[in-house]
Amino acid sequence: MTGLLYFDDLPVGRRFRSLPRRIEAADIVAFAEQFDPQPFHLDDEAAKASMFKGLAASGWHTMALTMRLIVDCLPVAGGVIGSGADELRWLRPVRPGDELWVECEVIDREPSKSRPQGRVKMRNTTRDSDGEPVQVFTAHMIVPRRLS
Amino acid sequence: MTGLLYFDDLPVGRRFRSLPRRIEAADIVAFAEQFDPQPFHLDDEAAKASMFKGLAASGWHTMALTMRLIVDCLPVAGGVIGSGADELRWLRPVRPGDELWVECEVIDREPSKSRPQGRVKMRNTTRDSDGEPVQVFTAHMIVPRRLS
Repeated sequence: MTGLLYFDDLPVGRRFRSLPRRIEAADIVAFAEQFDPQPFHLDDEAAKASMFKGLAASGWHTMALTMRLIVDCLPVAGGVIGSGADELRWLRPVRPGDELWVECEVIDREPSKSRPQGRVKMRNTTRDSDGEPVQVFTAHMIVPRRLS
Repeated sequence: MTGLLYFDDLPVGRRFRSLPRRIEAADIVAFAEQFDPQPFHLDDEAAKASMFKGLAASGWHTMALTMRLIVDCLPVAGGVIGSGADELRWLRPVRPGDELWVECEVIDREPSKSRPQGRVKMRNTTRDSDGEPVQVFTAHMIVPRRLS
């Protein structure tokens, strides 16, 4: 990958893959204390008694970490700017020690009629160390056209 | 509000409203450094030159803070547990000093045929100090039935 990505570089079907990032128990607890203070995200013993059967990351922590993975692997001109997301699903718990990585695929796009940019829909699948999907969602991105 | 909320307590149309939480510039930068390290979330001067025209919170920061507001105002039995989300949209930038609060409304629900629980869809609108919506999304929650 060299240089910045523009709308014109993102045809339907183009794929990207991030490097992995490891999530530790301390990260899970720190995120949960701030944003999702529920027993199954804060304490391993309490989590064992829950439907998660052990400490699990908040789904929004998985989502935030996925954003980091995307920012690190998608050098979009002007930045990775989204207007929203759809069809977000958490498929299995994220555990301490998991190394998460993301696969991104352009599934739709539409150039703006009035501005030098376009909308790009990307389907993003976050996977754990075993390659199993832990989260999927569709991102709606705003990407500038290449002006040359 | 007294006691825990069960599926049976969440008919379509029931609404909840959180208390406000203030977001500071230091919070915006700290979240962005970890999860969304882009100039418009990290540095006010750089942000002024971007489409945000000033420091703005990562959308995923707004989402994480919204989760905190929801956890604090919805005493769901067994915890606020989601399987996913749909139709997430960011409507205007969140700025340092904004006090965010959330309105939640049950928009659909379906009891499980096989288990003592049900699915509840809630539409959640996050608003700023002026009452203007900054984010909307639909949460898919799993909520236990009241066993009595």
